[in-house]
Amino acid sequence: MSKQNLNFKNLLQKLRDTKPLIHNITNYVVMNFTANVLLALGASPVMAHSQEEVEDMVSIAQALVINIGTLSPYWVKAMQLAGGKANKLKIPVILDPVGSGATKYRTETTKKLIQQIKFSVIRGNASEILSIQKEKIKTKGVDSIHSSTDALDYAIRLANELKTVIAITGKVDIVTNGKDTYKIFNGHPLLSYITGTGCAATVSIAAFLACESNPLIATVAGLCFFGLAGEFAFEEAKSPGLYKVKLIDALFEISPEYFEKNAKYEKI
Amino acid sequence: MSKQNLNFKNLLQKLRDTKPLIHNITNYVVMNFTANVLLALGASPVMAHSQEEVEDMVSIAQALVINIGTLSPYWVKAMQLAGGKANKLKIPVILDPVGSGATKYRTETTKKLIQQIKFSVIRGNASEILSIQKEKIKTKGVDSIHSSTDALDYAIRLANELKTVIAITGKVDIVTNGKDTYKIFNGHPLLSYITGTGCAATVSIAAFLACESNPLIATVAGLCFFGLAGEFAFEEAKSPGLYKVKLIDALFEISPEYFEKNAKYEKI
Amino acid sequence: MSKQNLNFKNLLQKLRDTKPLIHNITNYVVMNFTANVLLALGASPVMAHSQEEVEDMVSIAQALVINIGTLSPYWVKAMQLAGGKANKLKIPVILDPVGSGATKYRTETTKKLIQQIKFSVIRGNASEILSIQKEKIKTKGVDSIHSSTDALDYAIRLANELKTVIAITGKVDIVTNGKDTYKIFNGHPLLSYITGTGCAATVSIAAFLACESNPLIATVAGLCFFGLAGEFAFEEAKSPGLYKVKLIDALFEISPEYFEKNAKYEKI
Repeated sequence: MSKQNLNFKNLLQKLRDTKPLIHNITNYVVMNFTANVLLALGASPVMAHSQEEVEDMVSIAQALVINIGTLSPYWVKAMQLAGGKANKLKIPVILDPVGSGATKYRTETTKKLIQQIKFSVIRGNASEILSIQKEKIKTKGVDSIHSSTDALDYAIRLANELKTVIAITGKVDIVTNGKDTYKIFNGHPLLSYITGTGCAATVSIAAFLACESNPLIATVAGLCFFGLAGEFAFEEAKSPGLYKVKLIDALFEISPEYFEKNAKYEKI
Repeated sequence: MSKQNLNFKNLLQKLRDTKPLIHNITNYVVMNFTANVLLALGASPVMAHSQEEVEDMVSIAQALVINIGTLSPYWVKAMQLAGGKANKLKIPVILDPVGSGATKYRTETTKKLIQQIKFSVIRGNASEILSIQKEKIKTKGVDSIHSSTDALDYAIRLANELKTVIAITGKVDIVTNGKDTYKIFNGHPLLSYITGTGCAATVSIAAFLACESNPLIATVAGLCFFGLAGEFAFEEAKSPGLYKVKLIDALFEISPEYFEKNAKYEKI
Repeated sequence: MSKQNLNFKNLLQKLRDTKPLIHNITNYVVMNFTANVLLALGASPVMAHSQEEVEDMVSIAQALVINIGTLSPYWVKAMQLAGGKANKLKIPVILDPVGSGATKYRTETTKKLIQQIKFSVIRGNASEILSIQKEKIKTKGVDSIHSSTDALDYAIRLANELKTVIAITGKVDIVTNGKDTYKIFNGHPLLSYITGTGCAATVSIAAFLACESNPLIATVAGLCFFGLAGEFAFEEAKSPGLYKVKLIDALFEISPEYFEKNAKYEKI
């Protein structure tokens, strides 16, 4: 493991000192949860989706989250407006293509957003990220791509093609900008028993994106931090009800020193 | 009490082994909660309401929940599309007519949905179920119908008329397919201090519907299981904040053996 | 301090005895949370936003909450319909102008609603309330207006102009009807680490508004009660995950006697 001592201590301290405003256009299911995640880790959330105001709102934000979890045409149009404005103002934008691949509408919307908006980061699970490809590449299925080196090759190719950071989260997370690639080992299986923990990992990245100009580093930081909180919470709760409560507590309690010491990533 | 030893142990085991996908078109208030309820009890939730995708989404689901808690015309149209597709594909659909009877729009929407979609189960409280009737029958009011044998007669007649399972939940739940009728005694009064526990009981039924071809048995199982979790949670929490947390934990922790042993129902 | 022994004991008892129905047209982020807040403190919440039914719904409610946190044109129209109907029926209406001042759309919507609807109470933080003014008055910024006597003068002037109760919440809350003015000292800084605690303070006021004909007294009661719950919760939880859980518990557990004894307000 070629761990590179990224300065996560200072980065988390900066996040808590600056309390960046994160504008979220996200799904109904997780809004409350991801707002509380952002508050607990030290950022300031705002949720706004009206076409009448998203351009104004994103203009005062330090990062924009676009999450298609409960998409509909009105919201997609708002995403396009906010994303376009963010691009103009050089405000970083992260995409969470929830459920892309599950329905034609989600897949096509994801592809359209990627064409129209320059994303700093795209985070999804293997099947969501796989759905982004232009033409169906031959794989042995989602599970195989997830557990094999296929996932890695695909992520690197996609990152280069889209000039973005691709994050595929799963048991081990893969993060790449097409040149440099990291694996992340923080996390806990119980996270999958709470709705919106993928979306929460995305907003964690967004918070770090607001404080760190290199989106690759911000993504590694965001995923390590959220995964570490998942480990920390499991010390105190073994079932998903209390675990969700302790997860929020962990995001609030983890110190910059503890974060830097326990972030588990590897540059490959 | 003619308890009939329904095989709830195997049914819960099957649910946890198969992790059925439950498609929810539901209200904003409970989305996060019912998604977490479904995850905790072993199912896999998806929330999707866009007219552009509900037919695709329901096609990959094992059951569909239609809940009118925060209905509006766009959503009602999506319910009709998803329900129609589910009927075509023989995917079970459950209706939760939240607040039917409180406003003309809710009552009329409920009646329209019942005309257009074949529901496997309709679950509501006494006044919601009572609002479904074609012509106002003479009752001594909601409370009286709830506490008297009127409720039972009405539920049986409605189940026969609509060829569906009717579940009236309250202090004691009544479940009938018009021929066979069960009373369910699991539950706890503190559940009424958490928003969406009625909606959560509905998704619990939906999870069992996805694994059990007899909707009457699935409904008895779903209500017993959710009510039992409510009892289990009260062992550890007496106020609604922590009680909600422990309710989710209970749904996750209750074993198939414990469920079968402690389900309290009676065939009448 | 000229504490006036307002009879909060009887007022809370009345609230719990009568369980008033509070109709909320509010934002997606807090719906679940404020519904649970209302249930815990003894009221009965309903969320409904469809233009097809808001007039019917508000007609059976004892108070109406209008909260613009995730506003869009369809919802604003529903707010106007419900507010108009409430005014006709003399049902008290409270406005929470979330984020007013942050975007032109929010500020203009807030002003339009204030022109069209007679509000019993308007509650916001200093910058939200400040955004309501017709012409920009000269201030030393939001923080300064908050900590200085400027805030007080402005609130009194606005209350007189609009013939409403103005509540500016912050470290110390200011409540005025233009003639009488109170400061409220209950509350806890950790509340700001949970999304929607401002919105929750608003629904707490709404619940008391439903039981107390003097909106000034109802507002003082609602803010004292919610702030006191925030203090109570901190006895048991120091991080925001568990703190949110204990906050709900506190709203449920605080007795009328304890409330009256520990409400900290001052008539100035």
